[in-house]
Amino acid sequence: MASLRDWLDRAASGARLPSTRALVAEHGVSPVTVQRALRVLAAEGRIETRPGVGTFARARVLTRPADYDWQTEALSLSTPSAPRSPSALQSVHGDVLALHSGYPDRELTPESLVRAAFRRAARSDAITERPPTAGLPGLQAWFAAETAAEADAAAAPIAASDVVVLPGSQGGLTTAFRVLVGTGRSLVLESPTYWGAILAARQVGVRIVPVPSGAAGPSPEAVDRALAESGARAFYAQPNFASPTGAQWSPGLRRDILQVVQARGAFLIEDDAAHEFGISAPARPVIGQDVSGHVVYLRSLSKSVAPAIRVAAIVARGPARQRILADTEVESIYVSSMLQTVALDVVTQPAWRSHLRRLAQQLGARRDLLVAALTEHAPSVTLEQVPAGGLNLWARLPEGTDLARFVTGCRALGVTVGNGDEWFPAEPTGPFVRLNYAGPNPSAFPDAARAIGQVLNDGAW
Amino acid sequence: MASLRDWLDRAASGARLPSTRALVAEHGVSPVTVQRALRVLAAEGRIETRPGVGTFARARVLTRPADYDWQTEALSLSTPSAPRSPSALQSVHGDVLALHSGYPDRELTPESLVRAAFRRAARSDAITERPPTAGLPGLQAWFAAETAAEADAAAAPIAASDVVVLPGSQGGLTTAFRVLVGTGRSLVLESPTYWGAILAARQVGVRIVPVPSGAAGPSPEAVDRALAESGARAFYAQPNFASPTGAQWSPGLRRDILQVVQARGAFLIEDDAAHEFGISAPARPVIGQDVSGHVVYLRSLSKSVAPAIRVAAIVARGPARQRILADTEVESIYVSSMLQTVALDVVTQPAWRSHLRRLAQQLGARRDLLVAALTEHAPSVTLEQVPAGGLNLWARLPEGTDLARFVTGCRALGVTVGNGDEWFPAEPTGPFVRLNYAGPNPSAFPDAARAIGQVLNDGAW
Repeated sequence: MASLRDWLDRAASGARLPSTRALVAEHGVSPVTVQRALRVLAAEGRIETRPGVGTFARARVLTRPADYDWQTEALSLSTPSAPRSPSALQSVHGDVLALHSGYPDRELTPESLVRAAFRRAARSDAITERPPTAGLPGLQAWFAAETAAEADAAAAPIAASDVVVLPGSQGGLTTAFRVLVGTGRSLVLESPTYWGAILAARQVGVRIVPVPSGAAGPSPEAVDRALAESGARAFYAQPNFASPTGAQWSPGLRRDILQVVQARGAFLIEDDAAHEFGISAPARPVIGQDVSGHVVYLRSLSKSVAPAIRVAAIVARGPARQRILADTEVESIYVSSMLQTVALDVVTQPAWRSHLRRLAQQLGARRDLLVAALTEHAPSVTLEQVPAGGLNLWARLPEGTDLARFVTGCRALGVTVGNGDEWFPAEPTGPFVRLNYAGPNPSAFPDAARAIGQVLNDGAW
Repeated sequence: MASLRDWLDRAASGARLPSTRALVAEHGVSPVTVQRALRVLAAEGRIETRPGVGTFARARVLTRPADYDWQTEALSLSTPSAPRSPSALQSVHGDVLALHSGYPDRELTPESLVRAAFRRAARSDAITERPPTAGLPGLQAWFAAETAAEADAAAAPIAASDVVVLPGSQGGLTTAFRVLVGTGRSLVLESPTYWGAILAARQVGVRIVPVPSGAAGPSPEAVDRALAESGARAFYAQPNFASPTGAQWSPGLRRDILQVVQARGAFLIEDDAAHEFGISAPARPVIGQDVSGHVVYLRSLSKSVAPAIRVAAIVARGPARQRILADTEVESIYVSSMLQTVALDVVTQPAWRSHLRRLAQQLGARRDLLVAALTEHAPSVTLEQVPAGGLNLWARLPEGTDLARFVTGCRALGVTVGNGDEWFPAEPTGPFVRLNYAGPNPSAFPDAARAIGQVLNDGAW
C-alpha cells in the first residue's frame, strides 16, 4: 500500500498501474490484499479503474480555495480561540527517537491477547448489540471489582451500577468538569498537571485554580486554601504516578487530602490514568479510603490494553453518578460493544496478570536506562525523583534555558521531547521537559541523552 | 451464559456449579466458551472458583447504602437538572414488539461484511495504531469523496482534510453546538426534531429557538425570521428523512434555506443521519449546493454499518473546521483505528452497494406493511405522509389522547412506541407517536397495529 502510494506520487496523471498479478508478484502479498489497497486508493480519488482497460493514476485536482471569510464574524460570537494540539499527540515518522509521546510502545502492550480477543468477538453478538448506555454489565462489574479489591473495609461500597463505561477517559474529564463543576465555577488543579485536563477545563469554561505540586504531590494546606478561597467544590488530581511529575501520594497524603476534600464538601476527581504502570510500587487509589462518595474515579484501558481499545470508566456514587450518566449519554450515547467485549475478554484472562508483572519489569528497566543515560551524557539535567511508576521522567533543564529553542534543537538532532510548559495551567516554574521512556527503541536512549546534552552545551542560552 | 445466569439467580449461595464438561455437554458449546463465561461471572463476583474443589455460587452481598446527601449541595452549584434518557434508547427484552427504537434491526445491517472486516482488521496494525486525531486518511478521503460525489459542480470543494472522524455523531452535535453557537447564544431548531439534538443543545446551554416543521420541512420565511429575531448564527436540521417526521426537503426548499442561511451569515448544521435509508428517493445533502462553507455536515455509520461501529464524520470548511477539530481532540482525542479500519473496509466493498440497494427494498416493504396495518386496525391514527426514507412513521393520535396513558397502555399489550413529546423542543402541537418499522419481527406489525387500535378504542380519554 505504502509503496503503491509512493509510485503514485511519482507517476504522471493517466499512467497505467501494473496489473494485479504483477503487484502480487512484486510485493509478495495476496490478490485480496492488492484488491483492497486498490479500493482504498480509488476511494481516495488517487486511481481510476476503467473496466476491461486497466487502472490509472489520477491527477491531483488543485482547485481554487473558496472564500470562508464570513465565518470569522459568525464564529467570533462563540468560543474565542481554539486550544492548540499538545505535543504529546504529535505523530512522528522515520528515524526520530520519540521521547515526547504519552503512550507506551507496541511491545509493552498485550498485542496477541487483544488480537485473539478481537477474533473471538468478531464471531459473537458484540457486532450487532447495542449495549446499555452505562456499559456492558460484565465490564461495569469488572471495573467495580477491581476498584473495590483495593479498598479499605470501611470504604463506601462500589457496585457495578456505580460504573459508567466511556469511550476513553478524556471524555470523562469533560463530563466530570461539566457535571461536578460547571461553566464559570472554580476547579482546583495541580500545577503542573495532565495537559488533557487543562484543555478539558478550558473547554468547559471552568475557572482554573492552580496549586503547586512536585515530586511529593500537593500540600493538603495549599489544597484547603485553594478550595476555601475560590469556593471550588472539586479538586482534580492524579494521585498515582502523576503526569508529568511521576509523583505518587504517600498514605498520609492520601488521608489528608481526602479529609480536606470532605471537610470542604468537595469532590476529588481522581484520574488513575497510570494504574497499570506501577514499577517499584503498585497504584493505591484514594477512592479505596473514601467513605462518603467524595471521590469520583477515572480509569482508562486505552494505554494499557491497546490504542484501539478506547474504553475507560468513571466510578461515582450518589447523585453525582446519575448526572454523569446523563451527561455521557448526551455526549456519546454508548460505547461500542466490540471494544467493551474485547476489553473485558483481555483483562479477565490469566495472561493479563502475567503481562502486567512483565510490564512492571520492562518499564523499570527502561526508566533506569534513560536515567543512567541522562546522568552520563546530560549531567546538567536535574531529576527531582526517579518515579515509582508511570511512563515518564520529568526533567528540569538548567535555569535560563530557552525551552522552545531547546525543543527545536533536539528535534534537529532527531530527538522529540515534551515541552514542559504544556503541563502548567499557570506560569511554568522553570524550564522542564517530559521524557517518555516507554516509547519505541529504548536501545537508543544513550544517543538521545547525548543529543540532549549536546543541545544544552551548544546553545548560547 | 444467559442460562448460567438464570441458574445462579435460582441457586443458593454456595451451591456447586456443574462441571465444565457437564456444561459443555448440556449447552452444546465449546469448553473455551464455558471458560470465558465463567471468567466473566467471576469478574462480576457471582461465582467463586476454589482450585481443585470446584466452582460455587456466591451470595449477592447487600450492604447498607452510604450517605451521599452532601452531594446535593455541592452539585447544586453546577448543571441544574439531568436530562432524562429518551425512550428511543430503552432496551426491552422478551416478547415485546419494539416500535420505539431509533435503530435498525440486525437483519437490515451488513453483518457478514462487518464480521469479515473485523477478522481482517484483527490481523492488521489497526490494533496497535494510534491514528491521527482527525481520522484515518483513507476514511477521511472516503467521506469526502462520498459527499463530493453528490455535489453540484459549483459547490465549494470538499477535501479529505475537511473531514473530522468522530466516535459517533452524537458527540458531533455537542461539538458543533459548542463551536458554532456557544453557551448562552441562540440556535434555531426544527420542532419537532431529533431528541439527541435537543439534549445536546441543552447540555451546551444554548438558547433554543424553534421553528415549526412538518411533512414538507420548515418554511424558509420562518427560518429567516427566527435567525433575524434571535440573532442566531446557526440552524440545525435534518433535510433528508428527518427524525421524527420523515420529511425530505424539496430541491427548491434546499436552495431557499441555503440562501436564507447565507444571507444571515449563519451556519446550516446538516445532520444527514438517515443518508443510507432512502426508500423511494435517495438522500440529497444540502452541502452539495453550498458554495461558501455555510453548511457543516454530519454523517454517521453506526446505524447503517453496525451498532459496534461507532464512527461518524463532520465535514466543515474554513476556520470552522479548525475549531471543530480542536474541540473533538479535547472531547475524545481520537477514534479507535479498529473501528475506522473496519468501517472503511465495509463501505469500500462492492457488496456494500448491493446491500444498500437491498436495504431500500426491505425498508420499503416494512414501511408499507406498517402503514397498511395501521390503516386497517387503527384507523383513527393519522399519517401526514408516507415518508420517502428513514426508519420511522410519525403518527398523530386523535385529539385529546392522553399520550402518557396511551404509551403505558400499549406497553401493557406488549408494544413499545416512541412518545412524540420527546421530539419537541417547544410545546408539542398534538399527541404524536414515532413508530419504527425497522425493528425486529415485522410480521407482527398487524398485531402491533391491533394493539394500538385497541388502546385507542378502550381508553376513556
